[in-house]
Amino acid sequence: MTEVLSGLKVNGDSIRHLTDSVLEASLKGIDTHGLALFPHYVEGFSKGRLKRNPQFRILKNNAAAKVVDADGAVGHHAGIFAMDFCIDMASKYGTGTVAVKNSSHFGAANFFTEYAARHNMLGFAFTNTNSLVKAHNAVEPFFGTNPICFSAPIEGEDPLCLDMATSVISWNYVRNHKTTKQPLQDGLAYDEHGKFTTDPFKAKCVRPIGDYKGFGLGMMIEIVCSMLTDSEIGRDLSPMFGSDMTKGRGISHYFQAVDIAKFVNPKKFLSRMKNLADRIRSLTPLEGEKVMIPGDPEKQMLAVRKKNGIPMEEAVWAEFLKITDKFSLAEIIKN
Amino acid sequence: MTEVLSGLKVNGDSIRHLTDSVLEASLKGIDTHGLALFPHYVEGFSKGRLKRNPQFRILKNNAAAKVVDADGAVGHHAGIFAMDFCIDMASKYGTGTVAVKNSSHFGAANFFTEYAARHNMLGFAFTNTNSLVKAHNAVEPFFGTNPICFSAPIEGEDPLCLDMATSVISWNYVRNHKTTKQPLQDGLAYDEHGKFTTDPFKAKCVRPIGDYKGFGLGMMIEIVCSMLTDSEIGRDLSPMFGSDMTKGRGISHYFQAVDIAKFVNPKKFLSRMKNLADRIRSLTPLEGEKVMIPGDPEKQMLAVRKKNGIPMEEAVWAEFLKITDKFSLAEIIKN
Repeated sequence: MTEVLSGLKVNGDSIRHLTDSVLEASLKGIDTHGLALFPHYVEGFSKGRLKRNPQFRILKNNAAAKVVDADGAVGHHAGIFAMDFCIDMASKYGTGTVAVKNSSHFGAANFFTEYAARHNMLGFAFTNTNSLVKAHNAVEPFFGTNPICFSAPIEGEDPLCLDMATSVISWNYVRNHKTTKQPLQDGLAYDEHGKFTTDPFKAKCVRPIGDYKGFGLGMMIEIVCSMLTDSEIGRDLSPMFGSDMTKGRGISHYFQAVDIAKFVNPKKFLSRMKNLADRIRSLTPLEGEKVMIPGDPEKQMLAVRKKNGIPMEEAVWAEFLKITDKFSLAEIIKN
Repeated sequence: MTEVLSGLKVNGDSIRHLTDSVLEASLKGIDTHGLALFPHYVEGFSKGRLKRNPQFRILKNNAAAKVVDADGAVGHHAGIFAMDFCIDMASKYGTGTVAVKNSSHFGAANFFTEYAARHNMLGFAFTNTNSLVKAHNAVEPFFGTNPICFSAPIEGEDPLCLDMATSVISWNYVRNHKTTKQPLQDGLAYDEHGKFTTDPFKAKCVRPIGDYKGFGLGMMIEIVCSMLTDSEIGRDLSPMFGSDMTKGRGISHYFQAVDIAKFVNPKKFLSRMKNLADRIRSLTPLEGEKVMIPGDPEKQMLAVRKKNGIPMEEAVWAEFLKITDKFSLAEIIKN
């Protein structure tokens, strides 16, 4: 992947952040935001949607809060650039916040929050996205699946990570059901009249978590991303797929780091986090279930895939081979 | 109310913040957090749970983040004390954050976030609460209904306000169904085995929004409140009602203000917020419904109750009259 992007003259930091993120996402089982998107990003760099050598500009430079224009960078790079500032500001002033404009899809949000957590900070990441979640009481979608992502360090293990869309299901879940021609469960998606549908081909938008609550969370995220950066709201963004690949999409993000040591004894915080995590994990489970904390399923998958490799769909792999036949040198294990 | 609290030698700021908050909540229709709780707070001041003249201590004093020990103050007072610091820090550094320990029930969270919004800031407020929300995949509750509250100013109208529990229903909703002996809808509450029940008398805990997502949000809020202040987690707090009224409960909160002017032109922000709100309100509604933004129902109720007064249940009013018969001087309008 690095060779392909270097060949396109993408700068070193963009390459490193992008490849680290997609690889880590796939290793953790977050396949929708992992390697499967690499061909899409390559197309973005080739056609111009993504800037190969973006010049970040700091539009507002406050002690504990900045606004950054990412100049069409790939979001993975813009996010680490922003989170580095957050961490630096938090280590001086307690917390650090960066709102980012003119960015693009930033992949799996946990990439940024866990980065903060590995600096012994709490990390928060938010982004706006395309309009795909039904507005409460309306027939149509308005906000995107606008995710909330939060990480905190835990003694002796990888950080806790909550990375969630504010919708009950992702749009990808609908797309997968189209591919397999399976009906959706009731109560997850809506048709063009704003009524529940189980037909993935009729689904036009998805349900927010807790109905008006998830809709409200989507609005909160939209405000800290696009309104604080004077950017387009999700409703007005061109879609990630099927739109002009020569143009940037103008996505906006919001990041924050909180330096634990500026609040409490960090050693005690870490051991209390471990105790909290283990208390939850040892609650009496429902029959056949396991009680976990946010991020545990990904930690388990990481251990499996670090050993066994990353399984990949034939269609996705075909996209890789189209980019360069050098990918055929990869070690392929057939089931 | 002021006279009653003055008689108990409660300090002026505690009185002002508490009475302003419960009155505003009731005027907005948030009856669960309004006047109905006044007799409970009076009992708290009388018996010692709430400190009449608390001495706040700043345990950590960073430029943009502080930790405050509220010394058993009533939460409404602790919250405004904290948010005043947040606003001051945000106006200097971009954002300001205060985590509060040794506090108590803070009433309706919008009281603090709208206060920030009236200073042209974004406001956030979080608190931990008693263990009442089922842990995902477990049979029992772990975190509380831990609310998220967010406000942003809008040109020409009261601020937007999202004030939501991270559970599908409140515990009060269950209690009301006990009173009226009405069954609950399916899928809202669980019995002692962690199975859904429609019987309010068998309900032991409630469902988080989006299941594991709401559970994760509850954990995030617990971390920024109790873990950042080295306080007890919600699971270990004594309940608000039916526990020793002579002892503080040790509730913790987390507040944040974001100074809009440090990010973008505030005039433009306000007019874009107005435009966003009106675009949402003018979406095609489902039949018989109205499309609103968070806080609109409360704004409508405020207009009605400012004119017509606050309706009150007989049982609640009886509690007021028990405190002092001077309340009988209030203007009572019978239906």
